[in-house]
Amino acid sequence: MHFTSEQHLDGGVREREFTLGEIPGILWTPEAASSSAPAPLILLGHPPLGLGKMYPRLVGRARHSAADGFATATIELPGSGDRPRLPAVDQARADLRRALEAGEPVSDEIVDALVLPLVDKAVPEWQAALDALLTLPEIDGPAGYSGGLISIGTRLAVVEPRISAAVLFAGSFVPRTIFDEARQVTIPLHVLLQWDDEGNERQQALDLFDAFGSKEKTLNANMGGHTGVPQFAGDAAARFFTRHLK
Amino acid sequence: MHFTSEQHLDGGVREREFTLGEIPGILWTPEAASSSAPAPLILLGHPPLGLGKMYPRLVGRARHSAADGFATATIELPGSGDRPRLPAVDQARADLRRALEAGEPVSDEIVDALVLPLVDKAVPEWQAALDALLTLPEIDGPAGYSGGLISIGTRLAVVEPRISAAVLFAGSFVPRTIFDEARQVTIPLHVLLQWDDEGNERQQALDLFDAFGSKEKTLNANMGGHTGVPQFAGDAAARFFTRHLK
Repeated sequence: MHFTSEQHLDGGVREREFTLGEIPGILWTPEAASSSAPAPLILLGHPPLGLGKMYPRLVGRARHSAADGFATATIELPGSGDRPRLPAVDQARADLRRALEAGEPVSDEIVDALVLPLVDKAVPEWQAALDALLTLPEIDGPAGYSGGLISIGTRLAVVEPRISAAVLFAGSFVPRTIFDEARQVTIPLHVLLQWDDEGNERQQALDLFDAFGSKEKTLNANMGGHTGVPQFAGDAAARFFTRHLK
Repeated sequence: MHFTSEQHLDGGVREREFTLGEIPGILWTPEAASSSAPAPLILLGHPPLGLGKMYPRLVGRARHSAADGFATATIELPGSGDRPRLPAVDQARADLRRALEAGEPVSDEIVDALVLPLVDKAVPEWQAALDALLTLPEIDGPAGYSGGLISIGTRLAVVEPRISAAVLFAGSFVPRTIFDEARQVTIPLHVLLQWDDEGNERQQALDLFDAFGSKEKTLNANMGGHTGVPQFAGDAAARFFTRHLK
């Protein structure tokens, strides 16, 4: 991991851009974090729209988390931003768009082709990021994962024992195999669902919540449309991490 | 309203039993509440098992609410405790038990006969309690309603403009007419659902949540069985009232 820039944001937040091999990323730490008082880490997931586009929302989440005493970090997803395209995923995205425009059902084949290559490639990258980040003296475990594609969060929760709690955003296009993996998840989960998100398959989100094997799991469903997660729901997710990572 | 007893509980809570006509009730106020600093009121709903049996759980909720600065009050439900039985409701309860024991579906007729007389009789009583309680100098609006039969909470939310926010507990046996009333509810709602409550019809609870007309509504679903609402879910419900009644 190589740091490529550093700046200090209002509110006592240190922002550092880094590269992990070819993968760009950003780390935010509370200025108060130090080797004698390291901050627990939350990995910030995001949809595959590119870090540049997602930056305003990510830095907002990072600021809130820093105020709660957490370090946060994110990396670019495979095929997004300036990273090499994934032609097969681009093809699946075009197939998806065609199906939606034609009003046709989205086949399992399209969903698998769209999501699984991303999960397969991204999850080991987030694990490598965790390896690197946890060597920093101002950061310590346990770690959480928050947001992004629920399929990536689910796989990470199964395969990565250093992730000890996760906030997941219910979303559409979840491959069948991810439902099977969900049953193996045992860490505490806090799942956010926008009840009136018309682009979201609500029943699928409820079925996936039901599938998770965790003894502690909360579904927090709210109104406000796809991107309208209410402030109080964000606050509840933050309290979930404070309960489990501190 | 006549006060019949008064005691002071640990933690700065004043508990007064009262009668409202023939109906017994209990009022809890923070000792600090006064005419110059009146406390907002939360009506504490409960299942029709009798105030005596419900007292331990009610006083626990009252203590938490008092610590947050709220007055709370409850009254005995029609047909419960020492109040005259409602023979038609008792008959419906026997019919329900027979249907459940025989593994038969519970008919709409049984649900209506079990719940609607209770709703029709209880709601005006809770409104009368509100009339009396809001005349006390140490209590002020706005008022909230919390828990109990979701059918009573739904009807109250529709017909009683002084109720400005409600925490509802998802439960079974909701008459069809209550679904129609739910569409007329506009106040902020926080609905608690025990996801793994085997005695509860989860799909009906989700359908009722969907039916509520409120622009702000939250479904908070958790594990822990019928009576195992986690502490953090109780805390979230308390924060909902603090957001809306203060």
